[in-house]
Amino acid sequence: MLDGLIHLRKGTVSSAPGFCLRFGVLPGLDEVLVSIFHAPASYTGEDMAEVSCHASGFIVAEFLRRLSDAGARIAEPGEFTRRAFLNGKIDLAQAEAVADLISSSSSAQHRLAFNQLRGGFSSELAKIREQLLELTTLMELELDFSEEEVEFADRSKLQELLDSAFSHCTRLADSFKVGNALRNGIPVAIIGAPNSGKSTLLNALLNDDRAIVSEIPGTTRDTVEETCVLGGILFRFIDTAGIRQASDKIERLGIERTLQKASRAEVVLGVFDVTGESFESAAQEIARLVDFESQKLIILANKVDISEANKNVNSSNNFVLPGDLQRVGVSVIPISAKEGLGLDHLKDSLISSVGQLSSADTLVTNERHAAALRATAASLATVRSGLSSGLPTDLLAEDLRSALSTLGTITGHITSDEILGEIFGRFCIGK
Amino acid sequence: MLDGLIHLRKGTVSSAPGFCLRFGVLPGLDEVLVSIFHAPASYTGEDMAEVSCHASGFIVAEFLRRLSDAGARIAEPGEFTRRAFLNGKIDLAQAEAVADLISSSSSAQHRLAFNQLRGGFSSELAKIREQLLELTTLMELELDFSEEEVEFADRSKLQELLDSAFSHCTRLADSFKVGNALRNGIPVAIIGAPNSGKSTLLNALLNDDRAIVSEIPGTTRDTVEETCVLGGILFRFIDTAGIRQASDKIERLGIERTLQKASRAEVVLGVFDVTGESFESAAQEIARLVDFESQKLIILANKVDISEANKNVNSSNNFVLPGDLQRVGVSVIPISAKEGLGLDHLKDSLISSVGQLSSADTLVTNERHAAALRATAASLATVRSGLSSGLPTDLLAEDLRSALSTLGTITGHITSDEILGEIFGRFCIGK
Repeated sequence: MLDGLIHLRKGTVSSAPGFCLRFGVLPGLDEVLVSIFHAPASYTGEDMAEVSCHASGFIVAEFLRRLSDAGARIAEPGEFTRRAFLNGKIDLAQAEAVADLISSSSSAQHRLAFNQLRGGFSSELAKIREQLLELTTLMELELDFSEEEVEFADRSKLQELLDSAFSHCTRLADSFKVGNALRNGIPVAIIGAPNSGKSTLLNALLNDDRAIVSEIPGTTRDTVEETCVLGGILFRFIDTAGIRQASDKIERLGIERTLQKASRAEVVLGVFDVTGESFESAAQEIARLVDFESQKLIILANKVDISEANKNVNSSNNFVLPGDLQRVGVSVIPISAKEGLGLDHLKDSLISSVGQLSSADTLVTNERHAAALRATAASLATVRSGLSSGLPTDLLAEDLRSALSTLGTITGHITSDEILGEIFGRFCIGK
Repeated sequence: MLDGLIHLRKGTVSSAPGFCLRFGVLPGLDEVLVSIFHAPASYTGEDMAEVSCHASGFIVAEFLRRLSDAGARIAEPGEFTRRAFLNGKIDLAQAEAVADLISSSSSAQHRLAFNQLRGGFSSELAKIREQLLELTTLMELELDFSEEEVEFADRSKLQELLDSAFSHCTRLADSFKVGNALRNGIPVAIIGAPNSGKSTLLNALLNDDRAIVSEIPGTTRDTVEETCVLGGILFRFIDTAGIRQASDKIERLGIERTLQKASRAEVVLGVFDVTGESFESAAQEIARLVDFESQKLIILANKVDISEANKNVNSSNNFVLPGDLQRVGVSVIPISAKEGLGLDHLKDSLISSVGQLSSADTLVTNERHAAALRATAASLATVRSGLSSGLPTDLLAEDLRSALSTLGTITGHITSDEILGEIFGRFCIGK
């Protein structure tokens, strides 16, 4: 089709070698460069050509019209990547990584997506799959020869493989909490009494990075969410309604929402106004809203610029935490949101609070993958308890096959043909 | 530099052959395709590489940072095309056509720019240049051998070459009026009494082509200009203030502006309201504003849907023009701007009014080129009058050289070295 539409200076599009560029003319329309790929060495694995024309809306529209007249159609969203998957160029997890890579806006998001695109996640899954296939092989062997009363499978070997695969699945599934936070932004709730300076703090944090700040669409009006990249990590700041003994109904609703939002945050920034509140009682009130099992609390002593304390801006000596809060690792940072004092210290604290988490190589960032990994782990747990209670191998094999096919949905790789191939390929005993 | 930043699957960027594509990795950042070109077979004529990465702002910014760290800089606007010109890949007129090609929005604009890019205009200029060089050669010959009292130059041959070059230059320079109109939009003024339906007509004309309509920025508020592509030609419609005996100063100013705008239009659409005005007097009043030497007038009998005349919508029998207007080719089209009646007829008339003009192959679309062609023609006129009045050849040669160098500014080609080369290349008499 392209041969009729593009006249090359040398030869034709269909006769040109793969991975080459050719100068061509769209008759009466434009001079173009054509990139030529031949199956299977192309993104989709099929014969492909990319045509680069001049960036004129008129030329593009006219060329598309000619292509359409010749029988072509516009690709569907993601169609090229879908074809790449269907033709076995990449697996499902890699295909999903392409979209993540394109939308990444922080280096942590990018690193996760790039690792997944390059097959980092897929190779972790391949290791688990290998263990499960080995388990299956051992069990099927025992099954096949059961009439001959031969017990091939070494039960301790089975146990070991099972434990390893189970913990690998569980570890990956658990990484979703961090992976998801890094991908969508680490949620940081800003809480405190009304007029303690929460919104001023939010604006001050965002101010330096205005270019990469965006309001998250679809958020409710009563809590404001803004994202911001600090130290290569995306943070999602949630400004909340002020907490106080509310007199009217609507305000109570707003405060309930605040508490709900705060409960989902990874980090809670508790803001208190040093000019008006007692530090100790404010700290205690804020701490009541924090789940120290899963959340980190940083208390911000705000407005130090106008308080008596401003002689000691760089120390937290004036703000001595009650012993119980010290023990759970709460830190205090004196700041002035209005004057920008202490903000660098705060940013460093935020970055280091997630820094160690994000340095792991493979994190699950996709809800679908996490769910499949949890389901795989559950099947493996069933196999393990069956094995220890001495259930017959054919029942265990059923659960193993289920674990394998669930795991296989992540990459789209596993088919029952493959399982069979693995079994008989290993056997090679001419049966 | 790129070798350190891009790791190819095969070889290195600098060792790869020209006009080839290579799969590569930006370490830790992205998988990319690299298009490689070697001097002189590239757009600029230099060694070049184009890197196609995933469309992520993060990846692009990080790659640009790495390039910048390695000593690269962002190209200036038009720098690649400027380099292509400086390296002799294209001439100045072709370089100018690249920008026109990209901004073209109608097929007529596009055809002009594409013809110029493909060297259509440049080859016209080359023909003129050849004639001027031949003229120069003949004169310089006579000059060199003048002491030997030999008269090489055949005066009638000189005269013939001069006439041909002069008329060629003049014809091209004159084509600027049409070329410029096609490039920037054929100006069409809509005039008529207040409430005759001028704005309704403008909206009706634009309505069908809403997608390719845009308000021209920087136009004054008192006349509205809108562009619209009809039959592949860009039209620029100018809606004007209603014409009537104005009582106040401001309205008189608006009407003066109307007359001014109308005087620059190629086509004048005179709208009159069939429900209120006498056709003959309205036609006469409109005709007074038209310069029939250079403008075409189409009278639109509007509101036929609500007039008694609506039985004859498709004929203009009810609107008989005075004899003097018939003789200058004024046509009448009954329309209803509100109901869309007769608009197709009007569009066809507009298209055919410029159709014959735009079919010429080479039109000058650039003010700079038109000015250079006019200056060249003026120099040639001086040579011609000098020749007929018997001026010495050395004085004429001066004017010829000036014509050549002015012409040469269009393509950027002509240098005095080239003139010398041409002369001595032809002589070859071992002197």
